[in-house]
Amino acid sequence: MGSSSQENNNKLLSRVCELFKSLQKKFRTKVFNIVEKAQEVAKGDPRRIIHSLKVGLALTFVSLFYYFQPLYDGLGVNAMWAVLTVVVVFEFSVGATLGKGVNRMLATLTGGFLAVGAHRMATLSGRRGEPIFIAIFVFIIASTVTFMRFFPTLKARCDYGLSTFILTFSLISVSGYRDNEVLHMAHQRLSTIIIGSCTAIIVCISIWPVRVGEELHNLVCDNIERLGKFLEAFGGEYFEEFECGKSDYYKSFLHGYKSVLDSKNSEETMAQLARWEPSHGGFKFGHPWKQYLKIGTLTRQCAYKIETLQCQLKHSKIQASVELQKKIQEACIKISTESGKSLKELALATKTMTQSKSSNTDIANLRKAVENLKTLLTINQWEEVNLLEITPLAAIASILMEVVQLIENISEVVHELASMAHFNCDDAKVSPKQPCSSKEGPIQSIATMTIEKHEDITFVE
Amino acid sequence: MGSSSQENNNKLLSRVCELFKSLQKKFRTKVFNIVEKAQEVAKGDPRRIIHSLKVGLALTFVSLFYYFQPLYDGLGVNAMWAVLTVVVVFEFSVGATLGKGVNRMLATLTGGFLAVGAHRMATLSGRRGEPIFIAIFVFIIASTVTFMRFFPTLKARCDYGLSTFILTFSLISVSGYRDNEVLHMAHQRLSTIIIGSCTAIIVCISIWPVRVGEELHNLVCDNIERLGKFLEAFGGEYFEEFECGKSDYYKSFLHGYKSVLDSKNSEETMAQLARWEPSHGGFKFGHPWKQYLKIGTLTRQCAYKIETLQCQLKHSKIQASVELQKKIQEACIKISTESGKSLKELALATKTMTQSKSSNTDIANLRKAVENLKTLLTINQWEEVNLLEITPLAAIASILMEVVQLIENISEVVHELASMAHFNCDDAKVSPKQPCSSKEGPIQSIATMTIEKHEDITFVE
Repeated sequence: MGSSSQENNNKLLSRVCELFKSLQKKFRTKVFNIVEKAQEVAKGDPRRIIHSLKVGLALTFVSLFYYFQPLYDGLGVNAMWAVLTVVVVFEFSVGATLGKGVNRMLATLTGGFLAVGAHRMATLSGRRGEPIFIAIFVFIIASTVTFMRFFPTLKARCDYGLSTFILTFSLISVSGYRDNEVLHMAHQRLSTIIIGSCTAIIVCISIWPVRVGEELHNLVCDNIERLGKFLEAFGGEYFEEFECGKSDYYKSFLHGYKSVLDSKNSEETMAQLARWEPSHGGFKFGHPWKQYLKIGTLTRQCAYKIETLQCQLKHSKIQASVELQKKIQEACIKISTESGKSLKELALATKTMTQSKSSNTDIANLRKAVENLKTLLTINQWEEVNLLEITPLAAIASILMEVVQLIENISEVVHELASMAHFNCDDAKVSPKQPCSSKEGPIQSIATMTIEKHEDITFVE
Repeated sequence: MGSSSQENNNKLLSRVCELFKSLQKKFRTKVFNIVEKAQEVAKGDPRRIIHSLKVGLALTFVSLFYYFQPLYDGLGVNAMWAVLTVVVVFEFSVGATLGKGVNRMLATLTGGFLAVGAHRMATLSGRRGEPIFIAIFVFIIASTVTFMRFFPTLKARCDYGLSTFILTFSLISVSGYRDNEVLHMAHQRLSTIIIGSCTAIIVCISIWPVRVGEELHNLVCDNIERLGKFLEAFGGEYFEEFECGKSDYYKSFLHGYKSVLDSKNSEETMAQLARWEPSHGGFKFGHPWKQYLKIGTLTRQCAYKIETLQCQLKHSKIQASVELQKKIQEACIKISTESGKSLKELALATKTMTQSKSSNTDIANLRKAVENLKTLLTINQWEEVNLLEITPLAAIASILMEVVQLIENISEVVHELASMAHFNCDDAKVSPKQPCSSKEGPIQSIATMTIEKHEDITFVE
């Protein structure tokens, strides 16, 4: 009896030990996975770590208001609005933080002002009528401003402000029914929110600031470069013209353009936020951010074409047996490679904020390549050809010609941006700080020729 | 002297009058514009008006806590958290409101719990050490949780919750330095936030609720229908085969697909929010919302092809003079029209939540049309043809064949959705409430044939 109970105990103990060990193992793998993911997130953009530390710093800084007696006596329990403001206003980029901060401060000012007025009006109706009037005011203001948030212009510019406006109005007008010092309360809320917003803005700007304008500039350039890399790789890859090692190198570029397809929303948000940012680097206050949206739209149109080209890579490739067919194939590779080069050139010039003159010669070369292909296609030597076999090649030729057209359009809007933002010339004879005149460059002739091609572009606002 | 001063006075008066009139006119046009815009916004989606009134109602309702003495005595000045919660939690759709509400309540619970613990630990170090420890805790927690917000999975699921967590932790642990009743404060904050969240959720659900799941369902169906309408119109429009009146009718469909190109973000957000919604109509809890993302991805891929087709409409159209060329043109029109029909059929079946069997015959017809085109292209009678003239036609034929391939893929994933969500059969013999077995339909053979075509789709999470 005793030995069997001890056996049972031993069994139980060993089971508990096993359970504990398996739990420990699971916990270890879980922790390991989290650490791995955190490393991934941090490597993806190391500025994320800095941002997190900045938020911690700003919050610790603002909580000082609670610790210092004189400051606390001034603001009392309302100091918590400052803490709250830092949490909701502090964003990753300077533009977003400034936009939210200013929105919040202005909305608190106007909302508080209106609430004090509403409270004064309501008190005229006596102690009984006051809550009824306040309730009616809150209902009307909240409904109207909520409806205003659906206006596209207001939504893009001050959605956050409108929401803060409703909040401040409701809080102050409703609290006023209890606390007769409405004006005092409105004043305290405004001052704590100003303290919180300014803390967030100052910490955000002064420690390794992330400029959303610069991000947009780089994103647009990178997107153009991605398309360029694809096109440079496409021709050789499709017609299997690469040597063995080279093919692997180029293959890595064949999927990079995918992110361009869905870039519209982020570009629009960034352009909206960039307007809040003060002058920095080559980006002056009033930099033509809307022009980046134009470039982005054309880049996406080009990416849609490239998506169609990319599909051709998956299909069975044609065997270029006939002599003329081989020539056309060569012309297609030429167009593809030249297109890629000129896009990369444009991207580089924009990124370094210079007005590249070589892009004009690039486009001249592209046109020559297209003319060459057209001439080849016009020659009537197609007796031996099976049209089903040549259809994919014809499709590629046709899409490539459209891509060239789009590249001319992109080049034009990039040139417009360069002249609007006074980019420097890369010509050695011109002083590097002197902006080029845009009216004279040979690219202008291309610009006027292609101006009708992208008139159906629509933008935010 | 007197008359000249009177003359001056008259001049001044008339100027003031003019200024006043012009201001009045400007004000009128401004008001008129705003009213016009408001009408536009309301007509765009009349539910916006209802939403605005619902927000007003919920806020008025929650402000009752201030008016009734017994409730006020229980919650005191902290009742304002309920007002604040309604403003920030109340969203347009049930899914978004529920998601935010639950996130906010859980985050307040955990954040408050942790803050009370942190406060207890800090008090152990005495009056002097307490603020230092609290500051260190706030810094660590705020930095860590801010960093966690960059994790893609957490960002998609509970970004709002993480932000509320930081807020609650900072507020309660910092306030604790002044107010020794930390536990009481945490409790009050939690209960007011529960009151606010529940008010918002109840009002949002009980009065004309907008279900984001239903919105996603309709959006995906509408997008497929838009592509269908384009394809039905494209063939006739490109080859100018329409009679005069018909062309105008179809022209209106040629731009409707544009919104499909940028639908990715909104679809992903909607699918994320739809998971929060309780069962309603044909959408049970656990409805396969992710499947809609698959359909959306394929629809967009089809839209990219259509964008390339649409570009061809702008270019000079080919003149079909040669007999065979005319035949190919007919085959292209046939494919385009049939594609359009089968997409519209798929959209209608999905919208009405039925498993359409006619879509199988549609796809069989489509395949026949493609085979017919291929046969025509194989015949070697191309001596008289200028290939430059026929290139656009070849491109269109090639893209249309790819579109057919994509339609097969879309049909397959739509069929998967129908079987996962137990859509009803439209077959008259089957009871309308009985789900079809998906394993037997002839479409399955198409499914297995095309399964390898869209394996490179990536989804959120």
